[in-house]
Amino acid sequence: MDPSTLATLLISCADRRGLVAGLAQVLSGHGANILDSDQHTDRDEGQFFQRIVFDVAELNTDRGTLERAIAEVAARFSMTYGLAYKLGMDGLPNRKHVAIFVSKYDHCLYDLLLRQQAGELNCKLAVIVSNHPDLENVARQFGVPFKLQPKRRDNKHEAEQCELALLQEFHVDLVVLARYMQILSDDFIAKFPGEIINIHHSFLPAFIGGRPYHQAHERGVKLIGATAHYATANLDEGPIIEQDVVRCSHRDEVTDLIRKGRDLEKLVLARAVRCHLDDRVLRYGNKTVVFD
Amino acid sequence: MDPSTLATLLISCADRRGLVAGLAQVLSGHGANILDSDQHTDRDEGQFFQRIVFDVAELNTDRGTLERAIAEVAARFSMTYGLAYKLGMDGLPNRKHVAIFVSKYDHCLYDLLLRQQAGELNCKLAVIVSNHPDLENVARQFGVPFKLQPKRRDNKHEAEQCELALLQEFHVDLVVLARYMQILSDDFIAKFPGEIINIHHSFLPAFIGGRPYHQAHERGVKLIGATAHYATANLDEGPIIEQDVVRCSHRDEVTDLIRKGRDLEKLVLARAVRCHLDDRVLRYGNKTVVFD
Amino acid sequence: MDPSTLATLLISCADRRGLVAGLAQVLSGHGANILDSDQHTDRDEGQFFQRIVFDVAELNTDRGTLERAIAEVAARFSMTYGLAYKLGMDGLPNRKHVAIFVSKYDHCLYDLLLRQQAGELNCKLAVIVSNHPDLENVARQFGVPFKLQPKRRDNKHEAEQCELALLQEFHVDLVVLARYMQILSDDFIAKFPGEIINIHHSFLPAFIGGRPYHQAHERGVKLIGATAHYATANLDEGPIIEQDVVRCSHRDEVTDLIRKGRDLEKLVLARAVRCHLDDRVLRYGNKTVVFD
Amino acid sequence: MDPSTLATLLISCADRRGLVAGLAQVLSGHGANILDSDQHTDRDEGQFFQRIVFDVAELNTDRGTLERAIAEVAARFSMTYGLAYKLGMDGLPNRKHVAIFVSKYDHCLYDLLLRQQAGELNCKLAVIVSNHPDLENVARQFGVPFKLQPKRRDNKHEAEQCELALLQEFHVDLVVLARYMQILSDDFIAKFPGEIINIHHSFLPAFIGGRPYHQAHERGVKLIGATAHYATANLDEGPIIEQDVVRCSHRDEVTDLIRKGRDLEKLVLARAVRCHLDDRVLRYGNKTVVFD
Repeated sequence: MDPSTLATLLISCADRRGLVAGLAQVLSGHGANILDSDQHTDRDEGQFFQRIVFDVAELNTDRGTLERAIAEVAARFSMTYGLAYKLGMDGLPNRKHVAIFVSKYDHCLYDLLLRQQAGELNCKLAVIVSNHPDLENVARQFGVPFKLQPKRRDNKHEAEQCELALLQEFHVDLVVLARYMQILSDDFIAKFPGEIINIHHSFLPAFIGGRPYHQAHERGVKLIGATAHYATANLDEGPIIEQDVVRCSHRDEVTDLIRKGRDLEKLVLARAVRCHLDDRVLRYGNKTVVFD
Repeated sequence: MDPSTLATLLISCADRRGLVAGLAQVLSGHGANILDSDQHTDRDEGQFFQRIVFDVAELNTDRGTLERAIAEVAARFSMTYGLAYKLGMDGLPNRKHVAIFVSKYDHCLYDLLLRQQAGELNCKLAVIVSNHPDLENVARQFGVPFKLQPKRRDNKHEAEQCELALLQEFHVDLVVLARYMQILSDDFIAKFPGEIINIHHSFLPAFIGGRPYHQAHERGVKLIGATAHYATANLDEGPIIEQDVVRCSHRDEVTDLIRKGRDLEKLVLARAVRCHLDDRVLRYGNKTVVFD
Repeated sequence: MDPSTLATLLISCADRRGLVAGLAQVLSGHGANILDSDQHTDRDEGQFFQRIVFDVAELNTDRGTLERAIAEVAARFSMTYGLAYKLGMDGLPNRKHVAIFVSKYDHCLYDLLLRQQAGELNCKLAVIVSNHPDLENVARQFGVPFKLQPKRRDNKHEAEQCELALLQEFHVDLVVLARYMQILSDDFIAKFPGEIINIHHSFLPAFIGGRPYHQAHERGVKLIGATAHYATANLDEGPIIEQDVVRCSHRDEVTDLIRKGRDLEKLVLARAVRCHLDDRVLRYGNKTVVFD
Repeated sequence: MDPSTLATLLISCADRRGLVAGLAQVLSGHGANILDSDQHTDRDEGQFFQRIVFDVAELNTDRGTLERAIAEVAARFSMTYGLAYKLGMDGLPNRKHVAIFVSKYDHCLYDLLLRQQAGELNCKLAVIVSNHPDLENVARQFGVPFKLQPKRRDNKHEAEQCELALLQEFHVDLVVLARYMQILSDDFIAKFPGEIINIHHSFLPAFIGGRPYHQAHERGVKLIGATAHYATANLDEGPIIEQDVVRCSHRDEVTDLIRKGRDLEKLVLARAVRCHLDDRVLRYGNKTVVFD
């Protein structure tokens, strides 16, 4: 559907007048056709955010020139920005490389693999990393490399170094923690240059930490939730990308909450990953802007 | 729709075999026709709960005899139970008397008044109690007595004594805190023999305490919630009756959350009050069973 | 929150390159600061839609000059557009005048009156028109003029002429059919220069026509819905603005569906009216674009 | 969780007094312990429905005697009923045999296979039948027999005869049409002694027939739905078991509706199948009672 000549520009900066016109003008002036544009201003913080999708099919110049012009406007307005073309200079799709970290639960893994296979996720599933061998067979069925990296209390640092090396080897831009049952160290998070998306099986900030379905059952809530967020040094406190809930009742035992939760976790994680891959998410402070 | 000869029996006790048959038999044996029956067993706790709606139109005995027979079964199984007839012995509707406590927000108050007027709430709205005079006019429009009971730091105890006296005067069975901005003392809660339902404007246990919409905005959640619960000595920690959520986004400022939240608060509180009035809710520990 | 110096521009036209930049430039060039902009391109139809909110506080020219410049761009791109300032030239709020048409049901009427009172609806409730006297008292409580216009089979044409005169007298921009139980003639719809929003108590296109809750009960659906749409000559077939549903079950009799439906109707109608009043809705063909 | 000594009794009959007590008494009298009981009376139709789960661990008699006693009560009240033990007389699980019919879409098939593997579906997936070879590989991964039965205009009758023979061979109790793109003949439906559950990709009765997502897009709805129903001679008009919806907007092209719809279809079909397998669904007329 989308022509292969599309590009997406994601911008954030302090709000100043003339921003919108400045960008529109530089794109238009080089022959780029703006197909979609969405913006947001956080008035409390005085921050401006924009996502522009444009078509470079009829540029009256080359990419390099356009990029320099964008860089010039960005400098003028002190913008932080990212520019992603649908196709690379080599004419091949410019897809983010994704690593999925799993332990023993397979539902989120299967879900991501099937969505990728169905064309819902604009990415290359580069590698599956696990601290258990259980899901190797699933990886094999879908032809994705599987790397076993066991973790014990006493090898955690070394294991993470190996994982970081793997991520580098596979050129990974995004790590998805698909019910990965290990806590990544602050050091790992700091060293990985891309983003890490985690799925937490509660409606954060309720039920932070372990066994949230047990906590929810204990508290007697009437809805359970799931939350996809960027991983940060503070566990379960990173910027939220997506959340959803499902109704439960006194009839639901913990095993029912776990069962119902699986569907939620899959949906919420997949939506967050999809939004990230489509360059719809901007982090700022501990929040996100997620453009429709 | 419901014939005026209905009665509802709400039961809880330790689970034992023969319970269901025992009750069915005593009702049937006296000519009561069971129209609806719902039950639940909490296997972890070994607790049994049942709600039975039956028709006494063709009793082959009198109410007193039936009641003694029920009491006898209840004693045999160590049941706690409540029995409510649709009509009293005087032939008049046997409706719970409700007091609504408000401060300045009118949305939940209007909502309850309009639902009562529309016949959705099977109760008598006995009195509206407020620490501010602002909503007296609303009370007058709907013909419900309005009692002003100001509260200051230094008169809280005396004020609560007056409120308890009011509740007694108006034979109140249920107090609804419809965005009442005062915290009731443990003493008040302990002394009031009926139930107290509160609406908290968050998805509990997230955002306990004050200004939950501000907290939610600060955290950057993608859904906001509301929770109706029984008031207990521990603020916002009582048994949850009903919860719901609505989607929000980065576009929503705190004022938008407050606006969206008003609709949620109304719906969630009204559903909880309605369930309580229809004898559908059983408290146990810090949880509820809410029969459909 | 919104400064009083805001203006909103709603645009639709055939998609052409340079549109976005052209508009951004003309606004920026006159000192208008673009605060929010959302756009949509229907690729199948080749249609372009945009909503721009801008601040005129620091115009380097006057409104008239800006308007002529906008008109010039609009002509160049064959745009259809609407421009609405938050404040008129007289410094007074520039609010749409709304007429609410009702019959005997009061829930949507109360809901709109209370939302207007709470500041949720950016409009003046100019007049309430009804074919029954029942709700006059409600209108009086909120200080809105109430006009009784009875309708019989034999006076329908004359009655509509009177209604059209009323709408003219009260300078009405928007008619809201808040469960109005009369069908407006094609002629009425054609002659009224503003828009008419209707609430239909089903999930259109299911259950078109009369007694949709009875139809839904008969069909045994597990969800019921409500639909707010612009009225057109073809009953229940106008462009849909907003829809929502609520879960039901075998336990729900028709009266339960009607009760649950009231909440839905209120919410769906209010959201649609609010979007319309905030200039977020663009009609095209038999569809709408509703900007967030 | 459920002890292996459970049994479920599903009953429907004309409403008569004494029903509930009669059944409770016969079960209790034979030492069966009632763990869960839910009932419903359709007052318009005068029909009574009940689902009873009981434990036969401490029967004071044998199954045969209990069954004769149940049959006797059933005869007395002209009940239609079904009795299902968790374990058969041979001590093996008494699971329904399910055939899944598919064409080329794999999402519902994968979903059912994964749920079965996760223990969510209390059944044996006996056979996968398809008119295309595409999904044979998926069937093989999960170790379920795959039977190719091509269908052309001129072999439809013969093909259905082969399918009926397959269903008999695999002792199939339930056929699930998991986006099967062929219409089954009335004759097939009449001859298959079990039930057939279909998933229709719209919120029935809206968008009956072919290409419902295209119809939905054309109509400009703001929600799309999916409906699981029992197949009957009238296409898309059988008794509805479960429905759900998801929000869409002007931004969604048909391909987006198809993508969003896949998640809906999976969830709705799986919930319906699960309810059916747990003996929670009773058909009557063109409706269903679905016990929680």
